[in-house]
Parts: sequence; structure tokens; C-alpha cells
Amino acid sequence: MSAPTPKAGDKLLLRALRRETVERTPVWLMRQAGRYLSEYRAVRAQADGFLGMVRDPELAAEVTLQPIRRFGMDGAILFSDILLPLEALGMELCFDEGGPHLPRPVRTRADVEALRAVEPRQALDYVGRALGLVKRALPAHVTLLGFAGAPFTLASYAIEGGTSKSFLELRKLMYRDPATWELLLAKLADLTAAHLAYQAECGAEALVLFDTWAGTLTRADYRRYARPWTERVVRAVPAHVPLVLFAGQAEHLFQDQLALAPTGVAVDHRMELARAFDQAGGRVALQGNLDPGALLSSPEEVARRTRALLDSVAGRAGHVLNLGHGVLPPTDPECVAALVETARSARP
Amino acid sequence: MSAPTPKAGDKLLLRALRRETVERTPVWLMRQAGRYLSEYRAVRAQADGFLGMVRDPELAAEVTLQPIRRFGMDGAILFSDILLPLEALGMELCFDEGGPHLPRPVRTRADVEALRAVEPRQALDYVGRALGLVKRALPAHVTLLGFAGAPFTLASYAIEGGTSKSFLELRKLMYRDPATWELLLAKLADLTAAHLAYQAECGAEALVLFDTWAGTLTRADYRRYARPWTERVVRAVPAHVPLVLFAGQAEHLFQDQLALAPTGVAVDHRMELARAFDQAGGRVALQGNLDPGALLSSPEEVARRTRALLDSVAGRAGHVLNLGHGVLPPTDPECVAALVETARSARP
Repeated sequence: MSAPTPKAGDKLLLRALRRETVERTPVWLMRQAGRYLSEYRAVRAQADGFLGMVRDPELAAEVTLQPIRRFGMDGAILFSDILLPLEALGMELCFDEGGPHLPRPVRTRADVEALRAVEPRQALDYVGRALGLVKRALPAHVTLLGFAGAPFTLASYAIEGGTSKSFLELRKLMYRDPATWELLLAKLADLTAAHLAYQAECGAEALVLFDTWAGTLTRADYRRYARPWTERVVRAVPAHVPLVLFAGQAEHLFQDQLALAPTGVAVDHRMELARAFDQAGGRVALQGNLDPGALLSSPEEVARRTRALLDSVAGRAGHVLNLGHGVLPPTDPECVAALVETARSARP
Repeated sequence: MSAPTPKAGDKLLLRALRRETVERTPVWLMRQAGRYLSEYRAVRAQADGFLGMVRDPELAAEVTLQPIRRFGMDGAILFSDILLPLEALGMELCFDEGGPHLPRPVRTRADVEALRAVEPRQALDYVGRALGLVKRALPAHVTLLGFAGAPFTLASYAIEGGTSKSFLELRKLMYRDPATWELLLAKLADLTAAHLAYQAECGAEALVLFDTWAGTLTRADYRRYARPWTERVVRAVPAHVPLVLFAGQAEHLFQDQLALAPTGVAVDHRMELARAFDQAGGRVALQGNLDPGALLSSPEEVARRTRALLDSVAGRAGHVLNLGHGVLPPTDPECVAALVETARSARP
């Protein structure tokens, strides 16, 4: 390319996150790197399991770059997992067919006290190295994104020992031993903040904080048991790095997300995006919010929905096009192509 | 009891569903019969599996009555399962540790065309017999509730072959073959309507329609792919029988539920109940909405939350106290007792 290399702050995604007027809406997708891509499956087949792949900077960088090469998104999010920092606390972590598994979950005061935080730059150095590799290979106009799990969501995995439906052990600890809960959440918040800061040092230009399971809580319980520790993370992240908050299926927590977010809020696909913009009142950028399930339709239908979504918020500053949740594994890459191409060819 | 037997229409729960002024808020709980009760586990241990229990009118009636005897709720909902009517369409149904399983899911036009509806009074006669047994044994002031699954939720099980996380097969069929989708949903709607009418004939005094998975759809998709068939059910149910609509984790569909519901709408615990009453504007009754997860705290905390919820909607006609979702299996019966006792001793 003969065009001059833009300064970091000039990148389309970063300008949209600052709610500047942009020439078109930037786009990236949660889980844009993954099993729906044949080139990902090829790397995965050679790797020593999922953990082997995310812990290998070369492989993690390669799969991070794959969707950028194929589709040309405006943001590249590092291929990693929100649970890896739990290893920095001394927790054992496995991945099998059923998803993540933590064989020694944290259930008691003694369990929580035994957690010892190692600096992310030591325990998670492969994350920093992968970011460096991606950064060097990334087209100059593409923004590099880092991420971490929010304290509440990390706590759910640490306590349940894996993915849960009803979070029974979490509820028991949270309600019956609030002091232990608070100790655990404080440790997780400090770890998350350190991990996000480390990623920013290593080249991440924007960060996403994923609170996947926050929506299982009522608003009152969210405010009592989760929000203070998300707030602690938000306050600790370097102020110059844009930070987007994601909370899963949490329309009832949207006002809290708006109040907490320094830069942007991810909007679930079940919430009307135009209404979300009304509620946000221009204070933060909004990310979203096509239904990932709708990408199982057809490229034509995806293009139609993408146009309709962009039209519904045309003229609003601070929109980053994305899904409301991650790309589903059986998604046809042609449907992702239709989404990205529609966004790239649209004009506000 | 020497008190005169009240006429059916005089029952507290039915009066609240008609939004009459009542002496106290009636209470019943979704999944109030179940594994959290030792007397249930004793019956279950003797039965031929879960299906053997629900298909045996004596056992189904017995476990339906257990929570009424122990706690004194104002409503008794028949112990059964929303998937049983699928057997009346010729589908095979199993239950194992992982939940329901349909070994031959419906995926093609031919699969849907092959579904043959047998009249509920034949295929589901055990439901009618169980209702008759409960009715005879129930205290005169307790309302007998029947229920069924909404067409969209039944379709999700019929297509996926069980519980699903992302409903991939459902999305594919729904988006790629809308004519087959509509044929399936029409068959399910007619079956559901017939099953509800049959339960009313057999003594159910109020009905609940469970659309457990509706909340996975965006509002636009709900209106296109689910609502018309719920509407078909609502129109077909005998007008004199109160009907409450439940949609899981579906605050974004609340306006649709209000528009559809002839009698009442169940409110998810993540939605503020007072705000739900504001939105309902007195047109229908509202059911809910304590967090079932909060019943894992302590009897004192449950009593506190119950009082707070009742206070938050004091003076509103048409409230039926319930959870936002079903009782969780590890719930301490003392917490259910605290909830029911707080409701029964409260005065508006």
C-alpha cells in the first residue's frame, strides 16, 4: 500500500469509539476467529489442544489474523480465552469437548485465601508475545483489541468449576459468605485490571471487558455483588486506552453499563440498537448488535439485516458494528463476508 | 373445615387473575413440586423413571399435592412436562440425566408432514385423570392449574432433539425453510390449544402457557416466527379459562406478551415488577417475580425479599406472587416456607 501509515488515533475503529464522525461504520465480530473458518481448523488440528493453541504466540497470532485477511474487519481481537488469567492465581484449567473445566473449584474461605496472583507479564507472557506478533503483521488501519473477563464472570467459573446453567455454588457462596465473596472478587478484579494494563502495554489499542454471565443477576444483586468489582477494574485501566463493556443478555443492566463504561458498551441483539443509542445519550459509543443466530440464514438475509441495522442508527456517532454475541461455529463464512462487505460499502 | 366451600370463581388466585381487590396476594411457585422435597424424592425413587411418574395419574397427583400440604400455596400446578404432547404427534421422548431427549428430531418437510396428531383425550388421557385426582383431594380454596408449552418452545425441542444452547438446527430450519417452519408451528399450535382445552375440561381452573425459549429471539424474529402461533393458541383456548403467558428471559418481548395475554403475564425476575405493572397499565394480571437463585440464601433473606417485592407493588390489583423461573433443585424447603408464609401473613 502506498497510502501513508495512519497514526494510531486515526484508525477508524478508534475514532468511532471516540464518537467522532466517521466515513463509514467500523466492523469487527466477537469470535471472528474460530471454528467456522477452515484455516482455523487447519491450525487447530496441528496444535496441542485449545490451550496449546492459545498459549503458543505464533499460533494465537496466526488465527487472530485469519479473519482480517479473509474478510477485512476493522478490528482484530487477540485469540485467547477469558479463563487463562485464572492460571495466574494458581488454578488448574482444562478444556475438553464440553468446554472449560477447573478441577479444583474455589468454594471456601481457605480456597480463596490460597489464590496467589502472579504478575500477568510472567504468568501470561505468551499473551503479550502474541499481541506483539499480531501488531507487526496487522494492516496499518486495523485496530488491535485485547480483552479480559469481568470479575463476576471469572468468579462463576472459579466457583462452579466450569460453565453452569443455574450457578448454584456461586449463589450459595455469594449469599451465605459475602466476606469470602468480596475477597475473591477483589483478587479477580486486581488480576483483570493488571491483565488489561499488560495487554495495553503490549500493543492492544482498545480493550473489551466480558461479563458473560452478569445477566443472570437481578439489577439489585448486580449492584451489590458484581458492579463494584467491575468498577474497580474500570478505574484501574489506563485512561488513554478505550474500554468497551460487554454484559451477556443483560438489557436490565444496560443503565449500569452506561454509567460504568469509560468508552463503550456492547449491546445485546435482543435490545433495539436505536433505543440503546437514545438511552446512551451520546455519552459512550455502542457496539452491536446483529443476532449471531441470524448468520445461519443466508448471505442475502445477512446483508439485508446489516443494512437495516445501519439504517436504524444512521447519523448516530459512536457506532461499532458487531454481533450481540459471538459467531456460532456452524456459521457459513459467506454470511460473515456478507456482513463485513455490507458494512464496508455502506455510507452513513 | 366448617367454612362453606367457596364457589370456583371466589378462589383468591382466580380473583387476583381477574384483577379484583384481594385480602392478600396469592402465591404459587413454578416447579413447586420437585426434587427439592424429600417426599417427592421418595415417590420418584419408587417410580419407573420421570416419564413413568408423570404418566401415572396417582403418582402425578400425589407429587402435585405435596407442596400444597407442606406449604399451603394458593395454586396447585399439575406435575407434568411440556414435552409430553409431542408424543401425541408420534414423536419418541426419553428423559435421562441430561434432561429430555428426542431420538428422531424433526428436520425436514417430510419429518413435519409425518407428524400425526392424536386427540389429547386419547394420547394424554393420564393428564386428565391426574387432574381429576388432584381436584378431588385439593383444599377448596386452592386453584388447580394446567399448562402447556408454547409452539416455539415445543418446536425447539422437536427440531434440536433436546435442550439446546444456541438452537442451531432451529435457526436453520426457521430461516431456510419458512414454509416447513410454519407447517410445524401450526401443528404444534393446534396440539397445544387442544391440550389446554382438554385440561380445562378435566378441571384445570387456570392455564399457563410456557414459552421457555422465546427470549432467545429478537423482537422482530419473535413477531415473525413465534408470536402468530402463540396467538393461535390464545384464540383457541376457551375464553372463560384464565390463561397466563410465560416467556423465559424475555424483557424485550414484554410488550408482545401484554398484547397477547388474555389474563396474565409472568414477569422474569430480571425485570422490575413495579415497572412491569406500569407498562401493563392494569390490562392484565402479572405473575412473579422473585429470583429463584435467591432462594439459595437463607429463610430470613427470602422473607426480606418477599416483603420488599410485595411492598414494591402494594396497592396494585392483579398480582400473583411467584418466582421468575422454577424452583431450583438444591433449594432448602425452609426458604420456600419462608416465601409462602411471608406472602400468607402479609396484608396489602
